Parts: sequence; C-alpha cells; structure tokens
Amino acid sequence: MSGFESRIRETAELVEIALDRFLPQREGPLGRVVAAMRHGALDGGKRLRPFLLIASADMFDVPRDRSVRAGCAIEMIHCYSLIHDDLPAMDDSDLRRGRPSVHKAYDDATAILAGDALLTQAFEILASKETHPNAEVRCRLALELARAAGKNGMVGGQMIDIYAEQKAFDLAGIEELQRLKTGALIRFSALAGGVIGEAGDEDIAALARYSEDLGLAFQIVDDLLDAFGDAEALGKPVGQDADMDKATFVKLLGAGGARDKARRLVASAKARLERFGARAEALKGAADFVFAREK
Amino acid sequence: MSGFESRIRETAELVEIALDRFLPQREGPLGRVVAAMRHGALDGGKRLRPFLLIASADMFDVPRDRSVRAGCAIEMIHCYSLIHDDLPAMDDSDLRRGRPSVHKAYDDATAILAGDALLTQAFEILASKETHPNAEVRCRLALELARAAGKNGMVGGQMIDIYAEQKAFDLAGIEELQRLKTGALIRFSALAGGVIGEAGDEDIAALARYSEDLGLAFQIVDDLLDAFGDAEALGKPVGQDADMDKATFVKLLGAGGARDKARRLVASAKARLERFGARAEALKGAADFVFAREK
Repeated sequence: MSGFESRIRETAELVEIALDRFLPQREGPLGRVVAAMRHGALDGGKRLRPFLLIASADMFDVPRDRSVRAGCAIEMIHCYSLIHDDLPAMDDSDLRRGRPSVHKAYDDATAILAGDALLTQAFEILASKETHPNAEVRCRLALELARAAGKNGMVGGQMIDIYAEQKAFDLAGIEELQRLKTGALIRFSALAGGVIGEAGDEDIAALARYSEDLGLAFQIVDDLLDAFGDAEALGKPVGQDADMDKATFVKLLGAGGARDKARRLVASAKARLERFGARAEALKGAADFVFAREK
Repeated sequence: MSGFESRIRETAELVEIALDRFLPQREGPLGRVVAAMRHGALDGGKRLRPFLLIASADMFDVPRDRSVRAGCAIEMIHCYSLIHDDLPAMDDSDLRRGRPSVHKAYDDATAILAGDALLTQAFEILASKETHPNAEVRCRLALELARAAGKNGMVGGQMIDIYAEQKAFDLAGIEELQRLKTGALIRFSALAGGVIGEAGDEDIAALARYSEDLGLAFQIVDDLLDAFGDAEALGKPVGQDADMDKATFVKLLGAGGARDKARRLVASAKARLERFGARAEALKGAADFVFAREK
C-alpha cells in the first residue's frame, strides 16, 4: 500500500469512528431514523471530502479532533445528498456501494427524514464549541457549507442534473453542472481546512483554486469510469451515461481528450499548492489519487 | 382588529418581504427549485414562529432587521418540514393552506430539493454577519435551531408520528410526541429572541418555559380544531384524527378536559413572563391568541 493509500485509509477510519459516535443507536421510532442515518453514513467509501478537509487542516496544525468533527459534517452533507438522490422520485437507485440504498433498507419516508436529520446535524456539529473555540471560525464554516450545499450549490446542481436538457449541453454547460453538483462540496472541503486552521486569505484562496481544479478532474474521471470502468470494482452499473445519451466529458472530448484534460487539471491543482511546499504532500497525493482511481 | 391582531399581521408582512428577498427568482432549472421554495414559503399562514421570535427580541431592543432575519430562518425550517411532510411518501397531502402542496404544483423531486434548500438556507442566514455582529450569538442560534429541528427534535417527532402505535398512546406519549414534533421549534422561536437580544440566562430560561407551555397549548387547540373546527376556516379537512383513531388530547381528556388543560397552560405561559412586566404584552397576546384561534 502506498503512503497515500494508508493515509487516506487512516483518515477514513477516524471519520468512521467519529460518525459512529455522532449517531448513537436508540430504541423505538427515534431508533429507526438513527438506524437509517447510520445505514446511509457508516461504512462509506473513500471519505474523500473529509480527507481533503483534514489534510488541508493538518497543514495549519489543527488538532485532529477538530478537523475530524468538521470532516464528519461535510460527510453528513454528502451522505444526505446520496440518500435523497437515490429516492424513487429522484434517481431511483436500489443500490449504493453494493448495498441496498436507505429507502430500500427502510422506506421512502424514513429515507427522507434520515437525510433531513443528517443535513441538520452537520450544522449542529459545525456550530458546536468542540469544533473550534473561535465562534467566528465556526460561523464561517457553517456559512460556507450552507452556500456550497444549497440552492446555489449542490441542490442547484441536482436540479440541473434532473431537469436540464443535458444531451444538448456543451462543455461550458457540463462544467457548470459539475461545479455545482459535485464541485461545490469538494471546494468547501479543502477550503474549510484553511478556515479551521485560521489560515490567511491567500492560503485559503490557493486551497479553493486547488479544489476547483481537483473537483473538475474528479468529475471527468467519473465520466471515464462510467464509460470504461469495471462495474464490479465500482459497485454500480457502468455505461449509464451513454444509455441515457447524456452529454459527458467523454462524449464531448473523446476518451483521450477527457483523460488529457483530467491530467492537465491534476497538474494545475498541484501547482496551486506550491506556496505550501512539502506540507502539501497529502493534498498533492489526493490529486494523483483522483486521477488514477479505478472506483 | 385588536392590537394583537394588527401586530401579528404587521410582523407577518415584514417576514413576507424578507423571505421574498431571500428567494430571488431565477431562470432555468435553478429557477424551478427557487420557484418551488417560494411556493412553499411565501403567502404563508400566521407566521407564529417568527412572531414569537421577533416579539421576544423586541423586549431586548433588538433591531428589527436582525430579528426578522432570524424569523425567516425559523420559518424556512417550518416550511421545509411542511413540504417534506406533504410528500406522497409521508402524509400524502395534496393541499396546504387551500393551495396545491409543493409536490402537486411541481413534482416530488423538486419538492424534496426545495425542502432541502430551505433547510440549508436557514443556517446560511443564521451564520451570516447581518443577523448579528457577535459570532457567539450566531453560533448559538444555529446550534439551538439544529437541535430543535433534528433527530432529537422535529425530525424525531415526525418519525414517532409516522411509526409509533399512536392509538395506544397515553397522555405522556402524546405530550412527548408534541414536544418533539411541534414543541421544539416553538420553543426555539421564543428562546432565540432572548439569544439574539443577548439576554441573561434567567430571562432565556423564562422564555423557554413560556414557549414550552405555549407549544403544548397550541397542540391541544390543534386537536380541538380537528375535532370541532370549521374546515373552511382551517383550509383543510377536519375529523382526520378520529378517522385514523389517533390518540389525541381530545380523545384522552374529552373536549372540556382538553379545553381546560389548554386554558391552564396559557395562564401558566403568561405567568412565566411576569419578570418582564409590560414588555411582555405581545408574548402574552400570543398566548391568548393561540387559545382563542379558530384556524
């Protein structure tokens, strides 16, 4: 296992333990919503967003207990969005990471409420003193997260994904969709590490630019994996974009063009981190990881 | 029109204007989610929760632009919960305040996302400097709202409402359901006025106790209106609790017993405000209003 792989795995374990503590099991109907929240939030994927936040915070010597808390908040937002996206009224996905999605394991009402509760708890965590002693920092985290997740961010991107005539999209159109739907949360993740580290404006701006490049590369690789990836490794069916005749980076640029663009973006993302020198190793590793990932 | 009626109407107008500004119309798919948010949040009811917040803040000479902002946040939470509750997967209500519910006017996916976006924007408003210059105050507002709205508050109450064997509930059971489902947000509303007014702990505790009594009285009157109210004035069908054989305060206490209990709670709520003297006129008026309301 490479140094980067063991580092992202170590972070994912810290996040898993913290999420488990944030969602203690209960009895009765309240236990049902908590169980559904746990189903949607635990045992989850790479934890890329918390990794970006924690690795970015590490550069400013933020105590891990603080950055892991903020990482849990961003992961709760990510997981709530997956729970709601999987609903029959939205993408109607029965499977998520090879397991039944929350509405299949429970029911639609429980999935809606579990998503609502995760979204709400993310802000409870950010607003709590344990996340940072300086209330200005906590408010900025909450404000930036709300902007990234709301109608002018992730939710807006989801609306475009559902309602826009995507097959007619040009490159600018899919870049805008990506910037909102997946980019805004990835951008927040890296930027929030700077905020919680009380970094200067220029450092935070560099993190924002890094994560904008990274987010776009992430989406291009996603399109490549959907076109050419391995369904088993991915834990979901492939070829869905082509079946739906969606405009994707692969369709518009070709496989080679899309791969070149992702490669250039990853190089650009890493260049944004020059000011941080060797401190930025983990974030540079994340950029390489996003490019090379197979799931 | 009584002095109280003109006061609650005046506050509702301020909230309406502010909500309209928070939700500027847009073009395209983003415009669709904003239009659905506007459908669910504008032209809405009595605005009791913002009234409680603003009237409570008035006692501490909070500038109205701040208390109206916080009032909009609590109203966005209230409206998101109605949008999600009305969904086919939940209460399946086609009508809300005599108009099509959001998923009927748009569709289920749009209603889910509009609710998510309102929930998110509530925290964006509370975390913004314009709501209060002191970040400690903003964080406390966000923290208390998240607690009131989340899995140990409103969302938890909604789960109990859907999944518990309500017909078997005793008085303690329905009081617990009420405390979570409707009580927690009403409690937050009055308490938040003290928080934003940087009131002392004892003042805030008095506001919390006032609103706990008020919230319970509100629910008992709701049950009475469902049993004996006028469908036209209410803008919704009556007799639903009896049809579903739900345990209600009316069923457990009889009409007279329920009305007596509500009357005692209103008197108790007003007594909690003694320490504030004449400053508490509006909040006392709200308690009388909750008891006497016909819709």
